[in-house]
Amino acid sequence: MPNSEPNSEPNSEPNSEPHAQPPRARRFARRTRAMEASAIREILKVAASPDVISLAGGLPAPESFPLDLMPGLLQAVLTRHGAAALQYDASEGFRPLREALAPHLAARGVEATAEQVLVTSGSQGALDGIGKVLISPGDVVVMEAPTYLGALQAFNPYGPRYVQVETDEEGLLPASLEAVLARERVAFVYAVPTFQNPTGRTLSRERRIQVARILQQHDTLLVEDDPYSDLRYVGEALPPVRALAPEHVVYLGTLSKTFAPGLRVGFCVAPAEVQRLLVIARQGVDLHTSTLSQALAAEYLEGGHLDARLPATLDLYRPRRQALLDAFERHLPEGFRWTRPDGGMFLWVQGPHGHGRPPLDTERLYQRAVLRGVAFVPGRHFYVDGDSPAARASMRFNFTASEPEILDHAVRLLAEAIDEELAAQA
Amino acid sequence: MPNSEPNSEPNSEPNSEPHAQPPRARRFARRTRAMEASAIREILKVAASPDVISLAGGLPAPESFPLDLMPGLLQAVLTRHGAAALQYDASEGFRPLREALAPHLAARGVEATAEQVLVTSGSQGALDGIGKVLISPGDVVVMEAPTYLGALQAFNPYGPRYVQVETDEEGLLPASLEAVLARERVAFVYAVPTFQNPTGRTLSRERRIQVARILQQHDTLLVEDDPYSDLRYVGEALPPVRALAPEHVVYLGTLSKTFAPGLRVGFCVAPAEVQRLLVIARQGVDLHTSTLSQALAAEYLEGGHLDARLPATLDLYRPRRQALLDAFERHLPEGFRWTRPDGGMFLWVQGPHGHGRPPLDTERLYQRAVLRGVAFVPGRHFYVDGDSPAARASMRFNFTASEPEILDHAVRLLAEAIDEELAAQA
Repeated sequence: MPNSEPNSEPNSEPNSEPHAQPPRARRFARRTRAMEASAIREILKVAASPDVISLAGGLPAPESFPLDLMPGLLQAVLTRHGAAALQYDASEGFRPLREALAPHLAARGVEATAEQVLVTSGSQGALDGIGKVLISPGDVVVMEAPTYLGALQAFNPYGPRYVQVETDEEGLLPASLEAVLARERVAFVYAVPTFQNPTGRTLSRERRIQVARILQQHDTLLVEDDPYSDLRYVGEALPPVRALAPEHVVYLGTLSKTFAPGLRVGFCVAPAEVQRLLVIARQGVDLHTSTLSQALAAEYLEGGHLDARLPATLDLYRPRRQALLDAFERHLPEGFRWTRPDGGMFLWVQGPHGHGRPPLDTERLYQRAVLRGVAFVPGRHFYVDGDSPAARASMRFNFTASEPEILDHAVRLLAEAIDEELAAQA
Repeated sequence: MPNSEPNSEPNSEPNSEPHAQPPRARRFARRTRAMEASAIREILKVAASPDVISLAGGLPAPESFPLDLMPGLLQAVLTRHGAAALQYDASEGFRPLREALAPHLAARGVEATAEQVLVTSGSQGALDGIGKVLISPGDVVVMEAPTYLGALQAFNPYGPRYVQVETDEEGLLPASLEAVLARERVAFVYAVPTFQNPTGRTLSRERRIQVARILQQHDTLLVEDDPYSDLRYVGEALPPVRALAPEHVVYLGTLSKTFAPGLRVGFCVAPAEVQRLLVIARQGVDLHTSTLSQALAAEYLEGGHLDARLPATLDLYRPRRQALLDAFERHLPEGFRWTRPDGGMFLWVQGPHGHGRPPLDTERLYQRAVLRGVAFVPGRHFYVDGDSPAARASMRFNFTASEPEILDHAVRLLAEAIDEELAAQA
């Protein structure tokens, strides 16, 4: 940065002046090299164009938000808490919300007292805290392949070395996990066992029991990220791994899918010594989650609104999931396979690769698809190392943010782009 | 952590069983050693007891919060933005808030377009981001002595080596800053130039000009933390250092003191390449600040409510500041000195030290004061190395959260505790 006059314009371009010094490069922290702008962010920017049908993002449908309830919730908050709803509060979270979350968690099999529940700034806030207190540079973190991109973004600045465990239609392979833990001392294992992002896959009941046993045998922590389990459209709920190995799991949840993501209210239940450090870390990061957001969330839960409204949200999303499945069946050419998840927000498509022919390149397909007016996320972004043919031939589709007819139309456009790409490859 | 059965209680105490394995220590990130629970947190817990008058915290008066406006602000937000106020949003901040902040900033001399304004989760969120993108382990960060505790908490996990610059009644000494920068390559300088926390001191106009010149000459970044400049009770506003060296300052502000801290809305203006990395860091930390908080803040600013209500807040705090100054004058014994700031939330008291007699130990004084029903923060917590006699004899007092008569009563109790402590020393 050249020395500038006190009143120089911040946007002046010093190099356009004949005798300007070349700007000296600002030195940033070494960890910023692991923090480059996510490609998904650029993809979502393109996808936000009004000319494009975006199946790329992970947005809940705005029609699912309880706009009509908000004035009443605010009135209840102001009446009950007054100025406390606008004041600084404890890093652990707003007490009435922690109390309302305890039975909400118990209903899904996570037994915890209010004192054991931490409120976080979305699940993302918990992921950042976990990275901060558990990862020393070079420590091994075990991830599913593919895995949630936001977890990679949270952990990367803390310098982990990732080791991937294999997955199939029933989620991560216990034998693969066991092999890794036998070989390496790890900081923790990260997984989304239910309706995973990006694949939609769910870890089977048998495997949950096996994973809990492996965690205990190797005295290893699992970070169980569970944002989607409330969004089940068919089938029966499975116990969280936390219920099977409570001392070996940091359990994360969120109200982003069942109340509103813009409030940034997530929650976390962790073994006591991990919780203690997560609270200390919070003090340096943002002090606490918005008190007003937390107080509104407490009213929403206590007033029974989440339970009352969830069926309507499921009724909204269930036909969208079916519409996307039907559209894949109807329009995608031979050689494509996709997941059929019982819940969540995403389907995962595996394009042709192997068998002697060149793998589909979904980055190139993305460019063609956007020109035709449809966007998705190329699958390689969900891998620690996305260069395998299978990774390069995969892609993620969201179904919660679009109506059924739109989904069908979008897949028809996608199929045209696929034809074009396969013809160009041949 | 011992291996436990799948269904064991999370709170069971395995060591009480005769043959339990000794728990294996969980391994935490090395950086957690620099993140121990702040003593101030324990102090604030004691101070929160209903039997104690707390001058320890840094809370705005709850009577300053616009509770009456909240329903109208929410209605305006829902009418104007609908579901967008509850949806995920950009990491940079909610566009209408960034647009409303640009003129708010310009009024204090910070020229920035809406695109140059980042919204953060309080100023704390900006401090964490700055630590993350600017501090590699071992990098030098320059701090005032004493300095803001929350900045130390934000930076510590990133492993800086602190170098302190000397300060006097007019803030940091430019010659001391210049000497440090001549000697060391530094990541950045951190300062609160206006109504500093903890001292209440303000960097004089002449020194601001000198500091701006020094930053430019050494091509060094200043993190200018400015949470209090709106809270000026007497005298005239000074230009922020940002106005004098725009390319060398990351400027931080907050609505915590002029709207409500519980919304967690801060803001930041940084040189372009720093801003870019701060945005990327945000994606991993919490995605973005509560959209609803931001939308309410935008309405508050656009509707002219901040400007309309600020005079009443100043009228509330001005007599409190005067009451605390008067009480010190009336009750504190000889040998005590204190700051007389023109604004902000804190006064700083320097107890006797040096001149051959043992320095006052404000940690011990704190214990005596709490027993009598009054709390403050011992000054050593605001120093990187708080073991000097001057640091140990200093203490911080907040005046915004207590009424004038309470302040007088509290200082009377404090003076009794001081008499007792000095007698015990003699």
